[in-house]
Amino acid sequence: MTSKSQRIRQLTILGPGLLGGSIGLAVKKRKLADKVVVWGRRIESARAAVKRGAADFAADTPADAVRGSDLVILCTPVETMAQLAREFRQKLLRESIVTDIGSTKYDIVKHLSSLLSGRTTYIGSHPMAGSERDGLAAAQANLFEGAVCILTPPPRARTAPLKKLANFWESLGCRLRTTSPAEHDEIVAYISHLPHMVAAALVNVVHGRKDKAFDFIGNGFRDMTRIAGGPAEMWSGIAMSNREELRRSVDRLIEELETIRRHVANASDVELRAYLRRARQQREEIQHRF
Amino acid sequence: MTSKSQRIRQLTILGPGLLGGSIGLAVKKRKLADKVVVWGRRIESARAAVKRGAADFAADTPADAVRGSDLVILCTPVETMAQLAREFRQKLLRESIVTDIGSTKYDIVKHLSSLLSGRTTYIGSHPMAGSERDGLAAAQANLFEGAVCILTPPPRARTAPLKKLANFWESLGCRLRTTSPAEHDEIVAYISHLPHMVAAALVNVVHGRKDKAFDFIGNGFRDMTRIAGGPAEMWSGIAMSNREELRRSVDRLIEELETIRRHVANASDVELRAYLRRARQQREEIQHRF
Repeated sequence: MTSKSQRIRQLTILGPGLLGGSIGLAVKKRKLADKVVVWGRRIESARAAVKRGAADFAADTPADAVRGSDLVILCTPVETMAQLAREFRQKLLRESIVTDIGSTKYDIVKHLSSLLSGRTTYIGSHPMAGSERDGLAAAQANLFEGAVCILTPPPRARTAPLKKLANFWESLGCRLRTTSPAEHDEIVAYISHLPHMVAAALVNVVHGRKDKAFDFIGNGFRDMTRIAGGPAEMWSGIAMSNREELRRSVDRLIEELETIRRHVANASDVELRAYLRRARQQREEIQHRF
Repeated sequence: MTSKSQRIRQLTILGPGLLGGSIGLAVKKRKLADKVVVWGRRIESARAAVKRGAADFAADTPADAVRGSDLVILCTPVETMAQLAREFRQKLLRESIVTDIGSTKYDIVKHLSSLLSGRTTYIGSHPMAGSERDGLAAAQANLFEGAVCILTPPPRARTAPLKKLANFWESLGCRLRTTSPAEHDEIVAYISHLPHMVAAALVNVVHGRKDKAFDFIGNGFRDMTRIAGGPAEMWSGIAMSNREELRRSVDRLIEELETIRRHVANASDVELRAYLRRARQQREEIQHRF
């Protein structure tokens, strides 16, 4: 049950792409807001979102879009968010909550917190949902079901808005986690950005060297490289916004691979077995975690 | 329809583990052989396979097991196969076909071809099916459905036995590929052994350094590390039997990761985007290949 204070009267989605569109579809399907307003850089994309049933109204400007909303979600590329916040911040209600769905948090939380401080409650979100396809056409109401959503509330966040935002993501099917923006970026470097780079590297290591091998692949290789099908522009942008942590995680993976390489080159069966056993035990522990 | 010459009168499975047990279950379910005989290093495991419905008879020795069989499948660890062949080769029928399910082919094909030459037809097989669980308990009749099975027939293989073996694997649901033993090992280093090592490395890079990150993982990380749940002993054995090719593929993956690292460290957005786009295009091409 949603209590009265947690009910969303008006939701604004800025950027009706895969995630923004999916949020709209999920909210409409579950009737989580009285009204959904959408804005897109091109007015056609906002209108397409309305047509698709992901929003009720298309706004001409970010400022028009946020007017009267109690929840505003920035779903545009990370590098555009600060400029957008400058354009709409004067129009925010005092009680409104602003969040974003950016895949890195340290920089954007710093910028948005400072731009919006004193006006409203800003809390960073990172719903870890996606698809190999991008854009509104790939949006779906169930995209967030079972997905982890990481919140990065400021140290002295008020309880009511934090609860309202947490409740919102949970209503979409997310499993919530909370951490600081800095730790968020370290963690996602390991569990999201690094795996994405590795998936691309696994494809590229075969491509051009031994293309025939692609005729032999099975589900294992397919599972491991699925995320390499994601949009290159977006992932390059994400990597650039988390350069330090990503670089560090790549270094550490190279160290691990050098350990494996040494065991293989030295025919160190016992050591390699111990290495793989350690991974297996940890993997089993993860599997049963949820 | 199975023609008369392709009908299996008696099938022998040596080693009723995950793969041997699954072959037995599939053959019995689909009634592909008149009789299935099983042998295991421990007689209890052979009896358990009969009890499970994966075979009709448990034999005491490899020689007893192959007597009268027109198809013999070695499903024991690769390092035990040559010794087993020595134990049973005197008992083979002239028209019988011997194959194995080993994950590497160059060494074992060399040994078995020489041990069995003149007596029978030996053709290497590698059905690329598996599970995170191992042993007879994890065996299932549908394990091979949709799996790629690679055959490595000798250059002057006779047509009839090759057709019979190909037909057998296809009856289990496999999609067949054919190549030489040497090229097989090169290809599986890239598409199977390397991905397995990378999955273990991805788990171990987090484990001990940032265990908290495991609380935040989603389906992407889970997909990419699933195969790290496989049996360490088996995978270490596989790695040891394909050391040269695996070492080379690890070196090349490290090169790829160093390229990514350089683009990230230099903030080379354009180059990283091109790198990821190349992987994405190739990944899409793979996805639609079947």
